[in-house]
Amino acid sequence: MTPGKIPPTTVQRLPLYLRCLVQASAMHMPVVNSVQIAEMAGTNAAQVRKDFSYLGEFGTRGIGYEVDSLITHLSKELGLTEHRRVAIIGFGRLGSALQSYPGFDERGMKVVAVIDADPAKIGTVSDGITVESADDLEEIVKRERVEIAIVTVPGKYAQGVADRLVASGVRAIMNFAPVQLVVPEGVEVRQADVAGELQVLSFHLNPRRTLA
Amino acid sequence: MTPGKIPPTTVQRLPLYLRCLVQASAMHMPVVNSVQIAEMAGTNAAQVRKDFSYLGEFGTRGIGYEVDSLITHLSKELGLTEHRRVAIIGFGRLGSALQSYPGFDERGMKVVAVIDADPAKIGTVSDGITVESADDLEEIVKRERVEIAIVTVPGKYAQGVADRLVASGVRAIMNFAPVQLVVPEGVEVRQADVAGELQVLSFHLNPRRTLA
Repeated sequence: MTPGKIPPTTVQRLPLYLRCLVQASAMHMPVVNSVQIAEMAGTNAAQVRKDFSYLGEFGTRGIGYEVDSLITHLSKELGLTEHRRVAIIGFGRLGSALQSYPGFDERGMKVVAVIDADPAKIGTVSDGITVESADDLEEIVKRERVEIAIVTVPGKYAQGVADRLVASGVRAIMNFAPVQLVVPEGVEVRQADVAGELQVLSFHLNPRRTLA
Repeated sequence: MTPGKIPPTTVQRLPLYLRCLVQASAMHMPVVNSVQIAEMAGTNAAQVRKDFSYLGEFGTRGIGYEVDSLITHLSKELGLTEHRRVAIIGFGRLGSALQSYPGFDERGMKVVAVIDADPAKIGTVSDGITVESADDLEEIVKRERVEIAIVTVPGKYAQGVADRLVASGVRAIMNFAPVQLVVPEGVEVRQADVAGELQVLSFHLNPRRTLA
């Protein structure tokens, strides 16, 4: 089977599979089967096999998947053969918590720039990175070859920041501001929505419904 | 159609629909159709109609959905008729950013307790809430009738905290610690995974693949 297009719901699960495989590798498992992966990932084996089928011809029936070669392949699919260059725009409590978020490095992400508009923060050094001025955003993005921007500015500034990021060539934005960003075709935005996650939890507390 | 079981992927989208409907209501739109909702939510109209079909008999063919009654209904489905009582366990930068996360209140969430293990933080007041000691977790959970816990403690403490929360009767946990929590049947965990979100963005930067 020639690798073709991958459905968004499958893409969404690839980071989790990768994390499980790295864990299996750390536990010195050379081979895993779909049942084991499903157990680690909290899904079912049929789903795992279907998701992996989009990636091409992998695994041996009755034996399983070679952990290390699957890690290599998934990393390639996710474009993680080199560290992705990440900028954090907005260095409040959330931005600063994200900069020191454990596991960015081992999961292929490198924070290369931190940007804020507050003169009191500009010029301070955090984890080896100097906070730079939002006035210089375009210049910083180009100098650091930023590929992914994490936006944690207040809601009213988020769209303006996004526009400037896109104009500077950034094509991937993770938005923590509580507004829906409008971006041109070809730019990918992921919206963090903690309140929405809590609402999904709230659904499960509701005794009137059970899940399909 | 009698409301029945709702697939998890639909549940996942309900908070977004609710947000769009609240926005439509704020814009004084008494009625919206599935095309308009899809546009606001960034999905397609068929998906919207299918998702809403699980909620029962709504909308009028050729006219659309009554915004306010759909808001009421979605809120009920999500168990948001009263504010959900939320505790934040771990009051570092992330925990403190989350406490002041905009929109918790208007989206049905009320932070009722903040807990940390650091003696320097215990007793301090933040946004009207006194930080309390992790030693008293069980007591606080019961006193405040905590329904949802947000866990932002370091990874090595997360499972222990989760065990104590579950033993105290908490059935919904949002976990920001970078570890997979093990909880008994009937307890719902949502795992925040910022690095995973960035990896999905990275996939989209990869020129070798396009999405289905």
